[in-house]
Amino acid sequence: MTQDSSVRPQVTTGPITGSHKAYLHGPRGMRIPVRRIALTTGESLDVYDTSGPYTHDAATAAAPAVDLHAGLPALRADWIAEREPIGGAVTQLAYARAGIVTPEMEFVAIREGVDAELVRSEVARGRAVIPANRRHPETEPMIIGNRFLVKVNANIGNSAVRSSIEDEVEKLVWATRWGADTVMDLSTGADIHRTREWILRNSPVPVGTVPIYQALEKVNGDPAALSWEVYRDTVIEQCEQGVDYMTVHAGVLLRYVPLTAARVTGIVSRGGSIMAAWCLAHHRESFLYTHFAELCAILRAYDVTFSLGDGLRPGSIADANDEAQLAELRTLGELTAIAREHDVQVMVEGPGHVPMNKIVENVELARQWCDEAPFYTLGPLTTDIAPGYDHITSAIGAARIAQAGTAMLCYVTPKEHLGLPDRDDVKTGVISYRIAAHAADLAKGHPQAQARDDALSRARFEFRWHDQFALALDPDTARSFHDETLPAEAAKSAHFCSMCGPKFCSMRISHDIRDRTGAAGPAGAEAVEAGMRQKAREFADAGGRVYLPVTSAGPSTTDPASTP
Amino acid sequence: MTQDSSVRPQVTTGPITGSHKAYLHGPRGMRIPVRRIALTTGESLDVYDTSGPYTHDAATAAAPAVDLHAGLPALRADWIAEREPIGGAVTQLAYARAGIVTPEMEFVAIREGVDAELVRSEVARGRAVIPANRRHPETEPMIIGNRFLVKVNANIGNSAVRSSIEDEVEKLVWATRWGADTVMDLSTGADIHRTREWILRNSPVPVGTVPIYQALEKVNGDPAALSWEVYRDTVIEQCEQGVDYMTVHAGVLLRYVPLTAARVTGIVSRGGSIMAAWCLAHHRESFLYTHFAELCAILRAYDVTFSLGDGLRPGSIADANDEAQLAELRTLGELTAIAREHDVQVMVEGPGHVPMNKIVENVELARQWCDEAPFYTLGPLTTDIAPGYDHITSAIGAARIAQAGTAMLCYVTPKEHLGLPDRDDVKTGVISYRIAAHAADLAKGHPQAQARDDALSRARFEFRWHDQFALALDPDTARSFHDETLPAEAAKSAHFCSMCGPKFCSMRISHDIRDRTGAAGPAGAEAVEAGMRQKAREFADAGGRVYLPVTSAGPSTTDPASTP
Repeated sequence: MTQDSSVRPQVTTGPITGSHKAYLHGPRGMRIPVRRIALTTGESLDVYDTSGPYTHDAATAAAPAVDLHAGLPALRADWIAEREPIGGAVTQLAYARAGIVTPEMEFVAIREGVDAELVRSEVARGRAVIPANRRHPETEPMIIGNRFLVKVNANIGNSAVRSSIEDEVEKLVWATRWGADTVMDLSTGADIHRTREWILRNSPVPVGTVPIYQALEKVNGDPAALSWEVYRDTVIEQCEQGVDYMTVHAGVLLRYVPLTAARVTGIVSRGGSIMAAWCLAHHRESFLYTHFAELCAILRAYDVTFSLGDGLRPGSIADANDEAQLAELRTLGELTAIAREHDVQVMVEGPGHVPMNKIVENVELARQWCDEAPFYTLGPLTTDIAPGYDHITSAIGAARIAQAGTAMLCYVTPKEHLGLPDRDDVKTGVISYRIAAHAADLAKGHPQAQARDDALSRARFEFRWHDQFALALDPDTARSFHDETLPAEAAKSAHFCSMCGPKFCSMRISHDIRDRTGAAGPAGAEAVEAGMRQKAREFADAGGRVYLPVTSAGPSTTDPASTP
Repeated sequence: MTQDSSVRPQVTTGPITGSHKAYLHGPRGMRIPVRRIALTTGESLDVYDTSGPYTHDAATAAAPAVDLHAGLPALRADWIAEREPIGGAVTQLAYARAGIVTPEMEFVAIREGVDAELVRSEVARGRAVIPANRRHPETEPMIIGNRFLVKVNANIGNSAVRSSIEDEVEKLVWATRWGADTVMDLSTGADIHRTREWILRNSPVPVGTVPIYQALEKVNGDPAALSWEVYRDTVIEQCEQGVDYMTVHAGVLLRYVPLTAARVTGIVSRGGSIMAAWCLAHHRESFLYTHFAELCAILRAYDVTFSLGDGLRPGSIADANDEAQLAELRTLGELTAIAREHDVQVMVEGPGHVPMNKIVENVELARQWCDEAPFYTLGPLTTDIAPGYDHITSAIGAARIAQAGTAMLCYVTPKEHLGLPDRDDVKTGVISYRIAAHAADLAKGHPQAQARDDALSRARFEFRWHDQFALALDPDTARSFHDETLPAEAAKSAHFCSMCGPKFCSMRISHDIRDRTGAAGPAGAEAVEAGMRQKAREFADAGGRVYLPVTSAGPSTTDPASTP
């Protein structure tokens, strides 16, 4: 690398091992990205790709395809410029309700492998959102809704304690490389505006924020000093920059705050605690709530999607599904209806920390009270006793809540509750959540999800190690774990697994069974079955009830050649 | 360390960080081990302890408390010697059916915090097993059943490719240190007998095996050369040594083998594939099935528990809950009844690889067909696309299947499908499965599980970092992750979290709320609630419907001193 990194900051580029970036072609010349995995059988499998241009082959070539200062191409610019507002609204919801299939909807339909009309109708109904601020034309459209693939969000952002802007852009690239569908920029501190600008201009995925964080910076960290004006100006600033969705904790009402006083862990949402502090300090209702209609008017002018924050979400197993949480959820339902009246897209946030027996209730109540708005949950963690492993405690809950209908999962890294995630933590968090999302997609019967599982299972059974790695969520880790035990290249095509050793592999024996019986796929299987049924019939004729508590010795022949 | 390690092999000893080994006292002078976590508040919490004498404080002192050649004390020797067989049976099941509460049952009852009569009745009913071979008097009794804490098994064992005997004993100590309730010795190769002897004499937990593996060694790895005699002699050898439970794949019937031919991944159980190969080679019914009654007679003489193996379990998502798997499960039900007729304890093994939507069906069918015998499952993995992360893909399934009633979970490590687990992998696998088991215990409403969660949650809210670490499943990892961000000792008692920085911690703000409102626990909460209700009443009186789409500016005062 001879580039001057002070001029051209470096981020991770190049294809993921065993695959390359390809594009499906849609109307209007649109190109929908996929990760194309080439198998040693000559076949290939396309999988959903969130990584943007960074994983393009050209990015590794001599040409400086990635220039963080120039930003990504504005692929939606023409689409946005061409269309007229509907009643002042430029939102996907307004167009969908008017029966218009936008280019974003067409893009999403091809990306998800569904009909564009399904996309339009789900958006119109409010069951799905396409977060796409008209000021963020760089984004590759994606959809969040129960009828589509489960999505994963990764939080990035600096902090007062450490981190730098360049680190944050790389975190975006890194998180989307491994499968983050959106990122939330939770930066705090002095450089918050510039950090966000860099992230937005270089982000192929929707970017979410929590505007109250920046508003709080503007009043020097004193929640009581916040005001609607400071907040409103901050929201407008972020809308102008291109933020695609915003967490707004407008459901934290004055009268709900005392409901948290006897909790084991009080209020654990940062936004929730800020608003609770403001409400108590002034003994007035939250300005987010009293000015909610004004907020809707701002967001509809940009097509920014609400993510109605659960500021009173539980921070521990003990507090799950309590009165404070559920009271707020009812209010989020009320706010959902108001946002929709303004043609603003809405999703609703959920917990947090929930024992497994209370997870489904969260989805059911959200569905009922918030009129099927897409549910977006943080985990939930299913126990509090494993700090250091909360990507696992929460992947368990995330898979369950997604199976029950949650549309997007906010990831949790191994550092949750302990510190700031580093590069490895971000990757581990994203992969853990891709697992949870995929497990839910499988359980919901998504054909794309099943196809990838089947492809990997077949590669495993046929000892195609290279294909197993390429089809894995993390090819590099899979390969390196395999190589620790059997590093030789020959072992990659050897007909035994590294777990059992050459003599003793069940898959090999299973292959031997197929060979002996002449079975090869369904057709062979039928032949075997016919032959075996004959044998089985003889067996049944000889005895009726099958178990015979005989004492005679078993067969002692050891010559396999004497049998087929 | 001045000890000669060639004479006295070294294993990991000493207490887990933040706790020490203690004992509860039971009848007959019995001492039931617990891990006692001393909190900085002066309180302490006892948690279930599987680690045996290795975590005793004395083990770190000058005296050589641990001597692998001498083995552990035979704590059950007198109990075993004192009692008479019932009708030739020495099994916990026979005693339980006769209304006798054995010392093992009393031990287990104290360990689980339940009544001894519940233990006896569950064992008598066959809903729980206490694996405890009379030739393994070193074991600390434990129980496996749906009404008790969910248990975790860790597989250890050498392999033809690498590993040594000393490594294996350390793996036992290491796995039980982190919470394995049983271990299975899956060793293969020449030293199989001696490896097992070392493990048994040094194991405080029940040890399981798959006898067909050693039987296969005796016939030089050719499945067709196996016979009932070779197998029977192997079982007797292992019973004599003290193996507590044995996986027997007696449900792999000749007529079921063709059902696997069209599968995506055939037969993936090693034992299952061996027996399938034998059946096909001879075109006769499995000798494990035809000689099952004889096998029962052997096991009842030692009180070895059957673990009826699922040799036809699915090896991929595509094959889950198929005809082959379910046909075998019905046969396992038939065998369960026969074992119980012989007063032999039985558990039933389950899959493997199952999508989330098919998990509960497995438990329900096992419960129904196998008359509520304890279910013991491997994972299951909920997707196949994440090799390198199968501890996570399977912890998701394990938590779900345990919530639905599975009594014991066989762990999966990150190396699953890729290679042999090393020390770190074993720890990661055990911790992942303790998480799954604990999440299920919480969901099932177990008071001990909830108490530990609550203790950790309170420590978190009160910024007692040392207590958080001590209460964690893995105190060392939790502490080291915290120290990466904020290494200073002062930060351990600082009133902010390392995630948000000092200015911006929601927990701190939440504390401030409590302070301002005078709330301190439930009593204070009531006072707050009364005051706030007054305020809330005023608010309601003023408006009826709560949301007011007003346009007036919010309050602009920034002086917190002007409000309570």
